Amino acid sequence: MEIISGLTLVSKSNFQLNVINILKHAVRNFGRQEILSRRPDGTLFRYTYRDAYERVQRLANSLHSIGLQTGDRVGVLTWNTHENFEIYFGLPGIGAVMLLLNARLVPSELKYIIKHAEAKFLIVDESLLSIAEKIIPSCKGIKGCIIITERQLSDLTTELHPIYAYEELLYNADPRYNWPHIEENSIYSACYTTGTTGKPKGVYSSHREVYLQALMYAINARFSVNDCIFQIVPMYHVLGWGTPQAAILVGAKLVLPGNYNLNQVPSLIDIMIREKVTIFNGATAFIMPMLEFIQQMDLKPDFSGVQFICGASEPPLELMKRYKELTGAEIIHTYGSTEAMAIVTINQPKPWLENNLTREEKWELKRKQGYVVVGLDVKIVNSEGADLPHDGKSTGEILLRGPWVTNIYYNSSGTEDLFTEDGYWKSGDIGCLDSEGYLKITDRLKDIIKSGGEWISSIDLENAISSLSTVLEAAVVGIPHPKWQERPIALVVPRNNLVKKKHILEHLITKFAKWQLPDEILFVTEIPKTSVGKIDKKNIREAYKSVYTDNYSNK
Amino acid sequence: MEIISGLTLVSKSNFQLNVINILKHAVRNFGRQEILSRRPDGTLFRYTYRDAYERVQRLANSLHSIGLQTGDRVGVLTWNTHENFEIYFGLPGIGAVMLLLNARLVPSELKYIIKHAEAKFLIVDESLLSIAEKIIPSCKGIKGCIIITERQLSDLTTELHPIYAYEELLYNADPRYNWPHIEENSIYSACYTTGTTGKPKGVYSSHREVYLQALMYAINARFSVNDCIFQIVPMYHVLGWGTPQAAILVGAKLVLPGNYNLNQVPSLIDIMIREKVTIFNGATAFIMPMLEFIQQMDLKPDFSGVQFICGASEPPLELMKRYKELTGAEIIHTYGSTEAMAIVTINQPKPWLENNLTREEKWELKRKQGYVVVGLDVKIVNSEGADLPHDGKSTGEILLRGPWVTNIYYNSSGTEDLFTEDGYWKSGDIGCLDSEGYLKITDRLKDIIKSGGEWISSIDLENAISSLSTVLEAAVVGIPHPKWQERPIALVVPRNNLVKKKHILEHLITKFAKWQLPDEILFVTEIPKTSVGKIDKKNIREAYKSVYTDNYSNK
Repeated sequence: MEIISGLTLVSKSNFQLNVINILKHAVRNFGRQEILSRRPDGTLFRYTYRDAYERVQRLANSLHSIGLQTGDRVGVLTWNTHENFEIYFGLPGIGAVMLLLNARLVPSELKYIIKHAEAKFLIVDESLLSIAEKIIPSCKGIKGCIIITERQLSDLTTELHPIYAYEELLYNADPRYNWPHIEENSIYSACYTTGTTGKPKGVYSSHREVYLQALMYAINARFSVNDCIFQIVPMYHVLGWGTPQAAILVGAKLVLPGNYNLNQVPSLIDIMIREKVTIFNGATAFIMPMLEFIQQMDLKPDFSGVQFICGASEPPLELMKRYKELTGAEIIHTYGSTEAMAIVTINQPKPWLENNLTREEKWELKRKQGYVVVGLDVKIVNSEGADLPHDGKSTGEILLRGPWVTNIYYNSSGTEDLFTEDGYWKSGDIGCLDSEGYLKITDRLKDIIKSGGEWISSIDLENAISSLSTVLEAAVVGIPHPKWQERPIALVVPRNNLVKKKHILEHLITKFAKWQLPDEILFVTEIPKTSVGKIDKKNIREAYKSVYTDNYSNK
Repeated sequence: MEIISGLTLVSKSNFQLNVINILKHAVRNFGRQEILSRRPDGTLFRYTYRDAYERVQRLANSLHSIGLQTGDRVGVLTWNTHENFEIYFGLPGIGAVMLLLNARLVPSELKYIIKHAEAKFLIVDESLLSIAEKIIPSCKGIKGCIIITERQLSDLTTELHPIYAYEELLYNADPRYNWPHIEENSIYSACYTTGTTGKPKGVYSSHREVYLQALMYAINARFSVNDCIFQIVPMYHVLGWGTPQAAILVGAKLVLPGNYNLNQVPSLIDIMIREKVTIFNGATAFIMPMLEFIQQMDLKPDFSGVQFICGASEPPLELMKRYKELTGAEIIHTYGSTEAMAIVTINQPKPWLENNLTREEKWELKRKQGYVVVGLDVKIVNSEGADLPHDGKSTGEILLRGPWVTNIYYNSSGTEDLFTEDGYWKSGDIGCLDSEGYLKITDRLKDIIKSGGEWISSIDLENAISSLSTVLEAAVVGIPHPKWQERPIALVVPRNNLVKKKHILEHLITKFAKWQLPDEILFVTEIPKTSVGKIDKKNIREAYKSVYTDNYSNK
């Protein structure tokens, strides 16, 4: 990517985009706004931006006091709590790198990541201490551990050493800190992608990237000071999809759910109602079972006007309709990735479409991933790398570049070919762009089923099967086939015992060519998932790899 | 301002913030959205973003075809028209610098600016050709002139040479252009401030600055694709306060008023109603007489829900109340400057104030300039440069720095002390900040006179009058005027009895535009002075404050 210079003035623009400025300035204007955090017992901790900022400054001083320096990597293993919010600003604010650690990864993966990042310290929630204890002894680089706990350090039993208690550190620290101006290309956070094959790959995002993403997201999600934003997306996933920064940028109220799982859905819904949540973000994998719960409620919650910003995978049409029908909530479909610093597309309406499309066309439009936000370059290319037209039909791999899209994996030789020479990241997703700029993902490059030289979209099949009322969930993968190279197989979790293979096939044949249908439909009790809640196709392919080859030889 | 580096990866973030990308990407998503432009006969020209973008590409090719290159400065002397919109993107898009020329300046000022900027070309609207003819012959650097006209070049009578017709150039140009990636600190536009003493000073704004300002403004003014934005602020004033870029970033409909003055108010109101304008921007000096007109209308226009983004000077409380009462429009008070790339503060409500303040307190709050937008550092300092508290009482000079605040005037030695060593620009305005972040301007350090949205330097007038041999001393201040907000009044101490008002005016008209002249010249025996012997303008303003308001009511 050749860059030319126009007229330049030597001293121009040395004011750097630093993420801490978002908080500093938000406190100046919205100091009385609230941040809430759900405690383990379900009650709510509640403080203001101003209170939070004092603790962020105490944290910055604390981090220096235990020897951390500019450029050091610090692993963070915790939930969506107010302490995590403080770490989001205080840790990178001193120029250190916040290494996001997914609490749902297995210890061996966490070890790999911590070693690869050369982390010097770990900040860990007390509830995750047992994980830390499994990891740290073999990570020689780790010089100490800060434990987030309300207990005294002396009350904790652990072999880790040295350890510090988060609250004690803050209590003893100065409440004023003089933030350095950090060169904006300095790294703010490191997040490792684990969804693809091979070793986890480190996406290291700079202050500049995070700052620009926050500005863009606030505009596109239309956040304002009147919003109350429920940060459901785990903050160890690509910065909670960028929401915390965008939320405070506009002065919105922020609610953090703490450590939660599906059993806490009633408590989360209760918070939504009491705190008048207007924006909710969450993976499809979470809002799907949440709907199951809502369906069983006698009195449905009123979420009219609430936007459910939904990502990680495509929300089925039926899900979007049911949410609207039962609660009034609007599902806003987004698409993103760790490499692109969270949000790439957002499915916002446009007046000329709202006024001209039929009701059904509008629902169909909502199934698309949304338009690629202003600021990003996007290309759809065929297998030879040639540009395809944006006609809503031509499908190919999606390439992205822009001010917050990474163009390198950290210390990962052999990954260079995942980027193009002119700075595009090859997303590995297959899709098409229509003339209105809406992107439709049809599959992952590696999940597309190659049958007899033709492509079959595993996602289209999954969505079609899932749309049946008798089906709870479905996964489709391609597995080796001696004649056709690959053929689709479907795993189906039934909602009830009314579901029959015959019905599924009868339904599919109305939407697909006969050769595109799965040869086998297997009923299972659970679909394997990755740590980020996506269908684990790699594992499914492995587990079922011999079904057609064995069957075939028997036939 | 010391900048430290954290962990940096060599190849990170070479994707530059280029303003043309805002348009390119807006066309991808909002290609069907409309841009309207009022023609001289009052009818509306109407096209889409997509149409505009084709013409912007033709313009880029045209500019190359007449020999313009990266880094060249090109003066632009025109109104808020669709051609100006095209120039806003096409001209800096090739890496050239858009030199904004205020059509209401006198030729000597325009000459100074063009020479100082070393402009190579001029783009001028046919209606302003007579001004260009006065300037160009003495500006040797100008190599040619593009005239915006619907006529054939051969139908124009002018001595200028060489000339090109805008439409002919575009017609003959290729409709596809491959935009270069411009290093983001390259200059996008140059805008000269003429309000202060001395020669005009050039604020040269980079692509990065303009891009970031657009993102920030879209968030703070809460623009969306559902908005219809009326660009009343002249686009030769600090990029029309940054609205055109922010408008297309979100896909809003944009309406441009063309060449207008107060006589066209009925036509503008008519457009607002017909096109369903939701955002209007304009100087207080314009919306004040606009209200006069509305008061006389039998059927008041319904502007409920419409935001009047108002700046340049403080809108009187009564004005805000009357707008609300008569039309339903909400006045949103903003404060900005050329040096800060337009918007510094915006007076948006906050829920905790809305819910707790009385009706009258809310009106009082609306009289403040608004909160300093997130992204900017602000300080209030006393005359020794020491920080003052943000208590809503302590007043001092307002200092600003941030990603879009300039830290240098172009080629202006002697202006270095208008910036601090740590990168703040000294605004010259006096004010205070309250604990909610709202800024209140209480005075101006420099006694500039704001008349009808334009600035008149009191000191320049004083110097000109004093230069007459018949004059001993002169003082000029701005005092309230019901129509123009402020108008100059001159106090003159005669040296002898030969001096006549007529002679003073005849002398001034050789150096100033007619509208810059004092409406009243009063002969006095003494000019009030401060204890250190400076002209006591504060006292003079107080003593003569009613001269124009009383006169007005007598008329």
